Amino acid sequence: MTEAAVAVAAAVGPGARRVPRPRADALRNRERIVAAAREMYVEYGSEAPLDEIARRAGIGNATLYRHFPDRHVLAHEVVRSVMARVADQAERIAAEEPDAFAALRRFVHTAADERIGALCPMLSGAFDRKHPDVEAERRRLEGAVEGLMERARQAGRLRPDVEAGDLMIALSQLTRPLPDSGCLTMDRFVHRHLHLFLDGLEAPARSELPGSAATLEDLRRAAP
Amino acid sequence: MTEAAVAVAAAVGPGARRVPRPRADALRNRERIVAAAREMYVEYGSEAPLDEIARRAGIGNATLYRHFPDRHVLAHEVVRSVMARVADQAERIAAEEPDAFAALRRFVHTAADERIGALCPMLSGAFDRKHPDVEAERRRLEGAVEGLMERARQAGRLRPDVEAGDLMIALSQLTRPLPDSGCLTMDRFVHRHLHLFLDGLEAPARSELPGSAATLEDLRRAAP
Repeated sequence: MTEAAVAVAAAVGPGARRVPRPRADALRNRERIVAAAREMYVEYGSEAPLDEIARRAGIGNATLYRHFPDRHVLAHEVVRSVMARVADQAERIAAEEPDAFAALRRFVHTAADERIGALCPMLSGAFDRKHPDVEAERRRLEGAVEGLMERARQAGRLRPDVEAGDLMIALSQLTRPLPDSGCLTMDRFVHRHLHLFLDGLEAPARSELPGSAATLEDLRRAAP
Repeated sequence: MTEAAVAVAAAVGPGARRVPRPRADALRNRERIVAAAREMYVEYGSEAPLDEIARRAGIGNATLYRHFPDRHVLAHEVVRSVMARVADQAERIAAEEPDAFAALRRFVHTAADERIGALCPMLSGAFDRKHPDVEAERRRLEGAVEGLMERARQAGRLRPDVEAGDLMIALSQLTRPLPDSGCLTMDRFVHRHLHLFLDGLEAPARSELPGSAATLEDLRRAAP
């Protein structure tokens, strides 16, 4: 313990330890559940069992069910919060980063760290994609991504034959762990392979691409 | 029916229709089972249920069990045959294609069509990776891939900071369907995104990559 830490411990003392207010405790539990579910969705898809999520969050099943009465409510909150966080980051990066292609790069790596792969439940049948909360965050995220792409395109830094859907699909694919536990350790190569993909997106285009650009509209239509 | 077809039908006649020999029938069934399992492993991992595989192959469960008494025997044959086919293709492409980077591109797209993603069971605990049949094909495939990479490197067409493991991991990631049925329709963008990744691999390097190159040895070590 450092001297400063000893001084603080002495001043506060064991008797003076603050009892956490129930609201703060509940909020912390809620955040832990959402964070655990986010990881589980990335690894196992939206079928990740609730009791496994509770275990990973380090809380009891009863507490999980008090916050999220069923899997749909939990999936809703995970998807909404991941979209909100990634949209916040995209807007922040657009405001901070003067280089248009560097901004796109930063967004991709940040979205991977925010576990954008957890958004996949959104594309499965049971998920309510039309919920106003989710629609609002989705529109904000899509607007931010289109903005970053457009800015790089205008600056002549993005090859002209790609669209935001190409970026978002590849981002989902490259950030997911491979199935079977043995493949999970590939995680340490994720940023490297996103980086190589971004090098392929940069202008001037190095080759003619097969097929047609994936738009965000293609992504929405692909959902059942 | 065309005139030629009518002539053939008349010459052969319904009575003259050849009864398929049992051996040919058995071989065809075996091939159908392996092809169906290959698709199911790509979509669901090695836990794909055997009765679903039988249904997709259009044969009865009893026939499947006659050919493959348990899931391990089937996984073995799928992995061995995918590796053999992809190795054959890699060797053929190396012999045929004079342009070193074009050869690498052709290999990647061909491996995707051959469902290289079905090799993932190889990385799970239950799979016998040391079986001599599998080891032999793995060595041949790895040799062929290293050969294609080395040739492109020697020709100055491949960025020097990548290894065969980078290619093989990204190839597995980008060719897998996203989890949840809603994502399966992204398949039509697979070749497009592999192409963009390859553009990122081409020399000269456009940026400094994070982390260190993934070697085939890294892939083998990642398995439990």
